[in-house]
Order: sequence, then C-alpha cells, then structure tokens
Amino acid sequence: MTASRQIHLVRRPQGVPVAEDFAVVGVDTPDAGEGQVQVQNLLMSVDPYMRPRLTADQPLDAAMLGGGIGRVVQSRNDRFKEGDLVRHGAGMQELFVSDGKGLQTLNPDPALSLSVYMHALGGTGITAYGGLLETGALKDGEQVFVSTAGGAVGSVVAQIAKIKGCYVVGSTGTDDKAAWLKDEVGLDAVINYKSQPLSAALKAATPKGIDVYFENVGGAHLDAALARMNLRGRIAVCGMISTYNGGGEGVRNLSNMIYSRIRMEGFVASDFPHLQVQFVEDMTGWLKAGRVKYQETILDGFERAPEGLIGLFSGLNNGKMLIRVAD
Amino acid sequence: MTASRQIHLVRRPQGVPVAEDFAVVGVDTPDAGEGQVQVQNLLMSVDPYMRPRLTADQPLDAAMLGGGIGRVVQSRNDRFKEGDLVRHGAGMQELFVSDGKGLQTLNPDPALSLSVYMHALGGTGITAYGGLLETGALKDGEQVFVSTAGGAVGSVVAQIAKIKGCYVVGSTGTDDKAAWLKDEVGLDAVINYKSQPLSAALKAATPKGIDVYFENVGGAHLDAALARMNLRGRIAVCGMISTYNGGGEGVRNLSNMIYSRIRMEGFVASDFPHLQVQFVEDMTGWLKAGRVKYQETILDGFERAPEGLIGLFSGLNNGKMLIRVAD
Repeated sequence: MTASRQIHLVRRPQGVPVAEDFAVVGVDTPDAGEGQVQVQNLLMSVDPYMRPRLTADQPLDAAMLGGGIGRVVQSRNDRFKEGDLVRHGAGMQELFVSDGKGLQTLNPDPALSLSVYMHALGGTGITAYGGLLETGALKDGEQVFVSTAGGAVGSVVAQIAKIKGCYVVGSTGTDDKAAWLKDEVGLDAVINYKSQPLSAALKAATPKGIDVYFENVGGAHLDAALARMNLRGRIAVCGMISTYNGGGEGVRNLSNMIYSRIRMEGFVASDFPHLQVQFVEDMTGWLKAGRVKYQETILDGFERAPEGLIGLFSGLNNGKMLIRVAD
Repeated sequence: MTASRQIHLVRRPQGVPVAEDFAVVGVDTPDAGEGQVQVQNLLMSVDPYMRPRLTADQPLDAAMLGGGIGRVVQSRNDRFKEGDLVRHGAGMQELFVSDGKGLQTLNPDPALSLSVYMHALGGTGITAYGGLLETGALKDGEQVFVSTAGGAVGSVVAQIAKIKGCYVVGSTGTDDKAAWLKDEVGLDAVINYKSQPLSAALKAATPKGIDVYFENVGGAHLDAALARMNLRGRIAVCGMISTYNGGGEGVRNLSNMIYSRIRMEGFVASDFPHLQVQFVEDMTGWLKAGRVKYQETILDGFERAPEGLIGLFSGLNNGKMLIRVAD
C-alpha cells in the first residue's frame, strides 16, 4: 500500500471548465497482486477530446480519464518486468495497479524524446496520420487547410501534408504559433484567426480552393472552409473545439456540400489500428530526419493536470500539452 | 417562325421568390434548320434546386433553366421524327429549336402516365435512388429518416427504403401529406414538423436511432437528425430547402459526427449515370406493381411556372410539381 493521488471531476463544467470542477484527492494504492503490476505515472496527456466527456461519461468523484506513460514499479505479471515503460489509458493517477490489459510496452527510440510517444508517435500522431490520409483521402499535391495548425494534431497534419507535396494553409490563434508555423514548419500560408477576418484571409490564402479541410474547430472555421471547398473535397472531422463549451455560431454554409459533392466524415484515433505499423515506421523516420517538428508545453507536477486541461481552451499550450508527474 | 413564350428571371430574388422576379415574354421561335428539331413543350418541371441558381448562375432576362418533356413538331435531324417525345433541359420555353444534343427520346410504358417520366422515372427518381442506395449506402433493414417525405424526391426515397425492408420515418409539413404517407405509403412513423416539436417527435419515432438520414431540409432538421444518428450513420445531402431563401438557424450538432463517425455527403442527380439502366428497370417494375405510389400537383398553363416554383416554398404541392403546357 502506497499513498498517492488522483485527479477527480467533482462537478460537471458549465461552459469552459474551471479549477473548482476538479479536486486532487489522496488515495492509498494497493501493492500489485498475483498477475498484476503497479505503475508509476511519468507523463500524462490532456486533450480537447476530454471536454465533451466531462459532460457525458466521465464519472464524478472518480479518477479522470486520460492516457499517459508510466514505469512499472512492481510486477507480478510475466508480461512486464520492473522498470518497463508502458503507455496506458488508466487516467489521472500518480500510481495505479493493473492486470496488464490496455498497457502497451514502449521501446522508445533512444534518438527521440520519450514525450514524443505521447504526441507525434502517440494518439495525436495516429489521429493526424489516419485522419488526413484515410478519412481525408489525401492525394499528393492537393490543396489543404488545417485548423488549429499550431496544436498537437494540427501541426502534424500540416507537416504530413507538406511531406506529401501539398499546398498547406494553417490557422492558429497567436502570433507566436503563426511565426513557428511559417518560419519553422514551412507552411505556405498561415492565418491568425484572432487578428485577421477569417473568411477573407482564407479566400486570399487559397487561390486554388481547398481539397481537404482537416477540421479541429467547427463554427466559423467550418463556414469559411465550406465556402472554399473544391469539387469532391473532403472534410475530415477530428474535433470542433469551438463548440465544446457551448455557445458559438451555428454553421450556415452546409448547402455548399451539395453541388460540390463534399464529403464530411468524423473519426477518432482508435479507428486506425490497421495503419499503426506503417504510421510508426513513417513517423519515426520523419521525426529523426527533422521533417516533422513539434512543440510541447510541459507542466511540472501531477496536481497541475486541471490547469493544463483548462489551458487548452485559452491557447496556453504551444503544441502538445503534457503533465510531468515524475522522471 | 412561330410566336411563342419564355419565362424570364428579371431580377434576383431576395429571400423567397415573388411573382415580380419573373416575366412571361413573347418571342418568335425560328423553324428547324438543317440538323435541327423544333420541340413543343408539354410538361415542365419546377424544383427546389432552382432556387440557389436564381442567385448564382441563372442569367437575367433569358429563359429560365429547367427540364421538361416535349414533342418534336419539326425535324431536320435523322435522330428524331415528328411526333417523337423527348426529355430535355432546354428551360422554360413553350417552343424551342435544338440540334438534338441533350434531348433524350422517350418510349414511355403505355401502362404509366407520361408525367411519371418527369418525377419517379425522371430526375427526382434517380436522385432518390442514387442518393439513398449509393451515397447513403443503404443496407436492407436499416433505420431511415427522410425529410420532406411528402415531396417528389422524399416520397420515392421513403418507398425505396420500405421496399428494402427498412424502418422508415418521414417528416412533412401538412396533415394531408402526413395522412398520405401513413395511410397510403405505409411509413412506420410520420412527423408533421409544423405542428409537432421536431426533436422530441424524432426521438420518440426512432427508438433504434437513425442509420441513414436523407437530407432535404437542413437547419433544425439536420440538428434533430444529428442527435439521433447511429455509429457510422450516413447523411445523404440532397437539398437544404430551409436555407435557400436565407435566414434559418445555423446547425449546432455537427460535433456528433466525431464519436459516431458519421459521414455526410452531397450529391446531385447527374452523379448516377452508371445506375440509370438498373434504376429504370427497378422503378418501372415498382410503379407498375403499385409498390411506389406518387402524388402530383399539375398547374395548367405555361404562364403559371413562376407560381409553381414559388409554391414549392410554401408547400403548395403534394408530391411532384409540374406545369402542363400542352397535351
């Protein structure tokens, strides 16, 4: 038995989550029983997809959902030995016991930071890869628009599209991110949607229209994109962060879908197990060659997970937001 | 040279079209020259798809776009003889001259009314057939929702779905149409969206959710359907009549597309030439067996075409709206 902590949801957020919706709760974590492991969390992920689940299926007064990377500290399970690194979906717990189901042993490439296995080589990476190439059915050299292109998913989408020879426009909400996307990542055009009129800027930035729109935002972003979609364009719907906290404008340009025969389709990271091997091979190569760059915002301290999650909605993060629990 | 008439658009409608947006204009139609035919219009179609084009590509002070059935009255073209019936897209003209391109000779089944070649066996029929079976990828026995199920497209969609063993819910805007759909067509549930709260009624009528939504309306209809879509549901976007005249609410439930992996896709009648032979065979059989029923609203008199088109937006029609120009 070891004293540890969990992050609990203690009430359902109204609109943007606030600190008081969460609590850091002390618990006693049991030792590993027969067939079990005890895992210490090292890195935890906070992601926009969590917001709708706070209103839906996240139980109150229980450990928050979420994924992370941990280290096996006790093992009574033949599949794992002490010291193994594992990727897990065990939620926001400093320490937890598992029968091994849902734990994936990691053998990280020594040339890469462990944290990339939480984003470019993790859930956000396969989301970008599968959503763009399979749901979006991207063809080399097409015209691509990516919303929240400075985010963990969007920045990978934009770079895969560049690797595939596409003309790529990204939107983002800060000048810092815009500069990184233009100067470091090499996008063809970047729109700061907070300081520029989105529809006019997108029109100017997409003289050949849009073949694939990778949708992370919804609302006005979707309306602006719909007005620029080419015949048989695809909209891969990964997220609609502008709508998760309520409010926002309804979408009005959907009738453009008819004559332009636009296909819009939702997907989630777990839709692409059949792409996993190719994804890891491609992405490891791109990262090591510097062809996919990334940013991370890492908050130190388990108790800062709510702050990190809340910060996603105010643009606190540059790239992937992570919580460092231990080294 | 023969005196005849055309319907012109004389100004672009603001919102719902009004009579003053159109004019009936006298013209002299030349005789058929070498390689040409002169065609007398018999039946003309007015359709919701025309509305967006009044704002877009319909020229002012020229014959209105549109399709119809005519009779060849002069022929100097080997492909046609006098008396042939032809389906055409020559627009709203009493009499016109053509080189034969775009004219399709009709050999109507003597057991069927000629008018069905303007709807169930015409453009609205192939729209329903292709949109439901190909774009909607309907599988036998699925849960189907059809908006404007009393209309020319919707009523055919609903009946094909019933033939395919599906549970079918339709929405319509009048009690007359609702009664026809329930009693004559045999839908499983019918919602009058003008007298019932749409979302609550749709929820009650779809206890097993919706696998395919055939979309003719947009706005609140789409929001209500999105809230009921099953995993990997399809939304075949045929029209969004509620949005064509401006106004209306924006759509707010699009984020449901993500976790339910919904696919929404636009299409038009001309997308399905590869289905044409099978369509004619299936639909002729269904009509002759009474398995596809239809309603028509036929206005007598060429000059009533604007009235017919305007009436589409107030529910003047039961089923397909046609203009009878001559017998």
